[in-house]
Amino acid sequence: MRTVAYIGNRRLEMGDVESRPPSRDEVRLRVAYVGLCGTDLHILHGSMDGRVRTPLVFGHEMSGTIDAVGDGVTGWDVGDTVTVMPLDWDGTCPACRAGNEHICQHLDFIGIDSPGALQELWNVPARTLVRMPDGIALDAAALVEPVAVAVHDVRRSELVPGQKAVVIGGGPIGVLIAIVARRFGADVVVVELDAARRAQVEGLGFPALDPRTTDQVGWVEAWTDGAGADVVFEVSGAAAAVLGATNLAKVRGTVVVVAIHPTPREVDLQRVFWRELRLLGARVYQRTDFETAVDLIAEGAIPADLMISRVVSMDETQAAFADLEAGRAMKILVDVGRIGEAS
Amino acid sequence: MRTVAYIGNRRLEMGDVESRPPSRDEVRLRVAYVGLCGTDLHILHGSMDGRVRTPLVFGHEMSGTIDAVGDGVTGWDVGDTVTVMPLDWDGTCPACRAGNEHICQHLDFIGIDSPGALQELWNVPARTLVRMPDGIALDAAALVEPVAVAVHDVRRSELVPGQKAVVIGGGPIGVLIAIVARRFGADVVVVELDAARRAQVEGLGFPALDPRTTDQVGWVEAWTDGAGADVVFEVSGAAAAVLGATNLAKVRGTVVVVAIHPTPREVDLQRVFWRELRLLGARVYQRTDFETAVDLIAEGAIPADLMISRVVSMDETQAAFADLEAGRAMKILVDVGRIGEAS
Repeated sequence: MRTVAYIGNRRLEMGDVESRPPSRDEVRLRVAYVGLCGTDLHILHGSMDGRVRTPLVFGHEMSGTIDAVGDGVTGWDVGDTVTVMPLDWDGTCPACRAGNEHICQHLDFIGIDSPGALQELWNVPARTLVRMPDGIALDAAALVEPVAVAVHDVRRSELVPGQKAVVIGGGPIGVLIAIVARRFGADVVVVELDAARRAQVEGLGFPALDPRTTDQVGWVEAWTDGAGADVVFEVSGAAAAVLGATNLAKVRGTVVVVAIHPTPREVDLQRVFWRELRLLGARVYQRTDFETAVDLIAEGAIPADLMISRVVSMDETQAAFADLEAGRAMKILVDVGRIGEAS
Repeated sequence: MRTVAYIGNRRLEMGDVESRPPSRDEVRLRVAYVGLCGTDLHILHGSMDGRVRTPLVFGHEMSGTIDAVGDGVTGWDVGDTVTVMPLDWDGTCPACRAGNEHICQHLDFIGIDSPGALQELWNVPARTLVRMPDGIALDAAALVEPVAVAVHDVRRSELVPGQKAVVIGGGPIGVLIAIVARRFGADVVVVELDAARRAQVEGLGFPALDPRTTDQVGWVEAWTDGAGADVVFEVSGAAAAVLGATNLAKVRGTVVVVAIHPTPREVDLQRVFWRELRLLGARVYQRTDFETAVDLIAEGAIPADLMISRVVSMDETQAAFADLEAGRAMKILVDVGRIGEAS
């Protein structure tokens, strides 16, 4: 079967390996679609070379159907449509014992720390499966994982209906956070540098601010009758955004750190003190977030057609990353069943 | 009557002004003791020249007795022993309307934004008064305000009995936070550079770590069976402490920003994300914190004898600040009734 693996030095390589039957408590999936995300881009760039073992078959946003069921697996049948919550925890560390298995101190993030979905047949523990209801297309099903990230971020913020939220960064996760926050009853504005992305955000019905030409603080003050935003989601990863985020939040407001900041960032702790702000880290998701994400997709709350910029074949994966890097796409899916022109 | 005012250029000046009768809804206090604190030191250093109007009679930690009662004041009599919660809010801004009057967007911090307690007779709004029960000495009563700060910080952290807390910085507020957190049922360790302060902290029954010679992360990991601390209080104001604080907290743990950081500080947002940490700003106090502080002092939970390094007369105030600046004292009180040798 065909695979796509990161082999170091910013290179991907197609492989052809034997699939194996599922072990006990595993299922084997026939992978349909795999979404490419920012974390995959970090892997390709070598930023995570200290963590990953090459060659790494990556990919953790996916949809597929069950191809074979291992011993001991109950409740799942060949042909079931599923996605995977790609987290495996030890269950014994202090974080797990406190109920935070999703940030287990020895977490195996499947697709980063162990082989992921960019292979035609993929064996996973049955307990990672999430059932897809009838009527969800397989391409939309590959969006469940990033939607679950957004659900987790919004849930962690404790945003309540009627509140106002600022999303800094209008990439895929920022847009999904905006959609989920609005679905949960909030008013949302998005701050985004790129004009094309701002147009897309506005097409979804959100105001979109250009931080180079708009006085963000003044805009938010006017929007909130002088109070400031209830919640600010920092999704851009930019140092300037971190420094400015605290100026947008109300007294006792919340700033959620969603983006990855590989080096320490300057934070305006005077403002954190002055307004008694709350900065929250938010990482991955819990099963409830996956289930909510499935519901949101099933009810049509996520515009899959707008989110999925295009679909490529496995051999086009490296070229797809170049487009993601250049901001020329929102979400690109790899159709694992499609045989590419070049192969 | 005599006053002590900050007049700019790192200088204090004794004054002699007429007292005035209390206006409507005011009382006039005969000031007994005034505590000197880090904020006063910031004023003296000129760091708050953009905010204060000179000459500023400062001082916001105090005890005294009611000397005269203005029209419209009920429930208070001449001779009552009191302290003052030195906050005056507008009641109409978004923060006040949301119930956060203590961080009113137009807060008057009495003693900073308006005249404070370093005067023999001090007129204050009756609603700022906090009653002292019988049996509390007037010098101990002057500790209520800093104890209320510590109570607010601990309450804001949502520390619960049985949890473990790290206090970074063993000055007056750090020590009070440690005492309050222990009184609320937590196990507490204090990190402090100064050997004399560490000895004082150990004398109060807390482990005290020297950050230059102790592997703090390793110590806290061992202390918490590999989990990390439930709460870290950053009270030192040091950039290195901010950067290190996030490494001491458990998954979903809390870092409370107590110290003033006049310039932005580098924060390890990767760690905030990775462990889903919570950073909280904590500023001043609410009335419930003052009432808890009075109770703690009344029950003898605060070792006033250890906290109060010495008592000086009004004309010794400038010299007292030199000692505070050099770390040669924990808390210094000004005895406003005492006539100094030099005057």
